[in-house]
Amino acid sequence: MYSPTIQKLIALFSKFPTIGPRTAARFAFYLLKTSDAEINEILESIVALKSSVKQCSFCFNPFESEGNLCEICRDPRRDQTMLCIVEKETDLVPIEKTKKYPGRYFVLGGVLSRFNREDLKDLRTEELLVRAGQKEIQEIILAFNSTTEGEATSLYIIRLLEKNLPAGRQVTRLGRGLPLGGELEYADEETLGSALDGRK
Amino acid sequence: MYSPTIQKLIALFSKFPTIGPRTAARFAFYLLKTSDAEINEILESIVALKSSVKQCSFCFNPFESEGNLCEICRDPRRDQTMLCIVEKETDLVPIEKTKKYPGRYFVLGGVLSRFNREDLKDLRTEELLVRAGQKEIQEIILAFNSTTEGEATSLYIIRLLEKNLPAGRQVTRLGRGLPLGGELEYADEETLGSALDGRK
Repeated sequence: MYSPTIQKLIALFSKFPTIGPRTAARFAFYLLKTSDAEINEILESIVALKSSVKQCSFCFNPFESEGNLCEICRDPRRDQTMLCIVEKETDLVPIEKTKKYPGRYFVLGGVLSRFNREDLKDLRTEELLVRAGQKEIQEIILAFNSTTEGEATSLYIIRLLEKNLPAGRQVTRLGRGLPLGGELEYADEETLGSALDGRK
Repeated sequence: MYSPTIQKLIALFSKFPTIGPRTAARFAFYLLKTSDAEINEILESIVALKSSVKQCSFCFNPFESEGNLCEICRDPRRDQTMLCIVEKETDLVPIEKTKKYPGRYFVLGGVLSRFNREDLKDLRTEELLVRAGQKEIQEIILAFNSTTEGEATSLYIIRLLEKNLPAGRQVTRLGRGLPLGGELEYADEETLGSALDGRK
């Protein structure tokens, strides 16, 4: 129904995360109406992304400055005894924004769905064991989503660490409970149960 | 929090329709992980979009072949007496897929929100009056969404056509009623009222 170039773009945009063919079509028509100057900015930024953004050799977060380590990993003021494991790069940002976490990170690269052990090959488990096994590490924080996939991944990683690392390293998880502004009346049972368990 | 190139791409992707900064960030990280071959396909398709896709000089739908008219507008078998007005390019496709509309189209380029008459400048109203004023036109179908914006636009266009065109042209709108598989029990009052009005 659409012309060949538009069809091709729709196919490419449909592979973007969360995007189906309808939104992909809207992207194509948006670009058709966009000025040449802005199109050039988009093209140049994508090229720059691939040429100048590197992956940190410790935590796998992308960065753009000199060397092999990102700003966080090469900062000597960061607490070297703590390691926070997140699923993906975008999960690191909200934790940094709290300004409450002084340690380093590790981007696992995915989560494990309960029904598909295929996901395992996407996870950087070998690299995780090397980082978490460094002698200075004392606490490993699992900061996954509070979803079935996040829970399954937490359980898997806990078992993996227990089996492969010397004893004495503390493995913790993010606290569960009522979100800020959350009302008891509308909280689901799981959340309320976690809030009770985590009372202080 | 993100590196400059990633921040720039997030800003650009945030202007895409329906995309907020979070999804824009996911796009940037998706592209970081995408192969060079696929990145090149994306870049080339965007360039091709701007260089080889033209706008039909009658209906404003994009097309890629020779000449100034799209496949539909230059097809002599299409009924030249009917003109179907749609909001945007992507709205034309579902109507074509019904195979029940034999006439030509006109892409208005937007809708009028009830509270913002600023939207008026995006609408191709002058071009619409020229097309709808052609002597062969007998019926003009307004095919907008069944939303407050769609309704406001229908009312505006009806008044515009009445004021500017010679009498005798029929202006119709898409029928309203229960969607296929729709159950009475769950239909809202507006839909059910329209279904009653449109009974046959």
